[in-house]
Amino acid sequence: MTEKNEQKVHAIAETGKYPLIEYLTNKFIKAQPSTFLDFGDDAAVINPDAKKILLTTDSLSEGVHFNFVYTPIKHLGYKVVVAGISDIIAMNAKPTQIMIALSVSGKFSKEALGMLYEGIHLACERYKVDLIGGDITSSVTGMHISVTAIGEAEDDCIVKRDGAKEHDLICVSGNLGAAYMGLQVLERERKIFQENPKIQPELSGYDYILERQLKPEARDTVLNLLEDKNILPTSMIDITNGLASEMIQICNSSKTGCKIFEDKIPIDVETQKAAEEMNIEPYIAALNGGEDYELLFTVPVDKFDQLKDVAEISVIGHITDPSEGNLFISKEGGAIELKAQGWAE
Amino acid sequence: MTEKNEQKVHAIAETGKYPLIEYLTNKFIKAQPSTFLDFGDDAAVINPDAKKILLTTDSLSEGVHFNFVYTPIKHLGYKVVVAGISDIIAMNAKPTQIMIALSVSGKFSKEALGMLYEGIHLACERYKVDLIGGDITSSVTGMHISVTAIGEAEDDCIVKRDGAKEHDLICVSGNLGAAYMGLQVLERERKIFQENPKIQPELSGYDYILERQLKPEARDTVLNLLEDKNILPTSMIDITNGLASEMIQICNSSKTGCKIFEDKIPIDVETQKAAEEMNIEPYIAALNGGEDYELLFTVPVDKFDQLKDVAEISVIGHITDPSEGNLFISKEGGAIELKAQGWAE
Repeated sequence: MTEKNEQKVHAIAETGKYPLIEYLTNKFIKAQPSTFLDFGDDAAVINPDAKKILLTTDSLSEGVHFNFVYTPIKHLGYKVVVAGISDIIAMNAKPTQIMIALSVSGKFSKEALGMLYEGIHLACERYKVDLIGGDITSSVTGMHISVTAIGEAEDDCIVKRDGAKEHDLICVSGNLGAAYMGLQVLERERKIFQENPKIQPELSGYDYILERQLKPEARDTVLNLLEDKNILPTSMIDITNGLASEMIQICNSSKTGCKIFEDKIPIDVETQKAAEEMNIEPYIAALNGGEDYELLFTVPVDKFDQLKDVAEISVIGHITDPSEGNLFISKEGGAIELKAQGWAE
Repeated sequence: MTEKNEQKVHAIAETGKYPLIEYLTNKFIKAQPSTFLDFGDDAAVINPDAKKILLTTDSLSEGVHFNFVYTPIKHLGYKVVVAGISDIIAMNAKPTQIMIALSVSGKFSKEALGMLYEGIHLACERYKVDLIGGDITSSVTGMHISVTAIGEAEDDCIVKRDGAKEHDLICVSGNLGAAYMGLQVLERERKIFQENPKIQPELSGYDYILERQLKPEARDTVLNLLEDKNILPTSMIDITNGLASEMIQICNSSKTGCKIFEDKIPIDVETQKAAEEMNIEPYIAALNGGEDYELLFTVPVDKFDQLKDVAEISVIGHITDPSEGNLFISKEGGAIELKAQGWAE
């Protein structure tokens, strides 16, 4: 599935660091007025213009967060940007700039890095963020990418994790578990391929969940929708480690409990179908699967009428007193305490 | 040379991500008024208060930028912070915050990461910068660290690379080549040790150059000194890839040439001694050795009287018309065109 490149390729070592950076970044055009100085100096400079500045950083490692057996390198570039800006969006802020720090081994050609930066460029255009800096160094093995995302917001618009109140409605955007099931399909085909390289991967019929895994989108449109309805969430987080882990984060920060209902969790039919094929309960994919990049947020209960018919948003439960715990209510009515997954995603 | 830890160690996988972050960061205390929100949410928030915000990111990889055979992990933590904030200082700005993105394989214990963060903490205290966020994820092999450094400055104080003018004096802080010669000593002893593990490394007499390599400092004090003298450099850069490479950066950005003189380049006696032992010309260590973290800057020629007796600053040459090239003048008077080193440091 990796993209074929019939052109002559060049080793990065023969290119020179600064010509390589020029080659990778010459297409990027500034979109943000707050970008004051981008490449070409010791540091980039931004002009906050009386706004608060938001900052976040994420790391992705080859073999842990992505696998080039099935990840097209251009898609990876796109996804890295999405992973970074999703954290800014989850504060109800506008992503404005990114920086990319890349460590790569000699196995990557200049042209492969060019494809990576094409994906980064595409995402920068889609989300109107400026690439303002970064670093490219060598690594002994594989590729390691860190993305720093920068955003801006008016002070009174920033939504943290700690503002949820008892009786608030718990909402999610889009649908959950799709990226996780996309990964399971890719992993299944990878194993079949490794056992018998003559068998071509069977990926038709999974277009939606594969795209959710390989080229996810951040949910800036949900912020616009909430703004149009004049709704400021009381708390918000993006769903990168599964609904359970993020829900617990909000409850711990807000010192509340919660009750979420299995039959309210939005799951796409393709996610459902893939989960059934692989004997996975679809709600498990939603609770514990990662990389949905959907938004989980809480709103005061009186906003229900405004949200109940919005297709992009599902109300999945409500905030409770902390003494009630963080509960998942199954279709049959049984209550299970929510648990977060392992340490590193 | 790695520090011995007799206590029981814990695998990071058994610690849990958020308890691990809590364990690593609980000692950090905010020093900067602009730090508005640090850990514990999707993004950190800073309050620029009408200042410009500066941003830079650097990557360091095990086996390329550091080697645990001779790098104490606490020193590495300190050095990572210095590497980040040095780029902010090189813009004549005040470093205020950092974020650390860490990818680590399972070979590192919770306690080893604790030592790394002790070094980070020490540097944060020394330079009064706040650790405001980061990421910790797993890697397949080794350790990869990215540091994002943030700083603030008044608009008219920012010094870029592109302001050098013909006749400006070229100055460097401290002395050059020490970190590089420190690395050569460590590499020599590592090879001897690998060939015969019974031979103890012979490191006495190299204290200064080893410290320059293992626990470098950033040159914020030089900024204070220049401010006291009311001197605003016309261009500035920090010396991380050797004097030659950085000098070329300034000349390319400023569209000038330069002339620097071998006999003016400040070299410590210990650097000199180690270079002689290893048959390396000391000026080669200064021109092409990395990680000095000294400042290279230009000032108008009428500042000469104010700088000529300052021990921390050496005037090493002057800016010329670009048609003259970027020249290094040897002690014998011969002129050599400056050349930058390889692509990735």
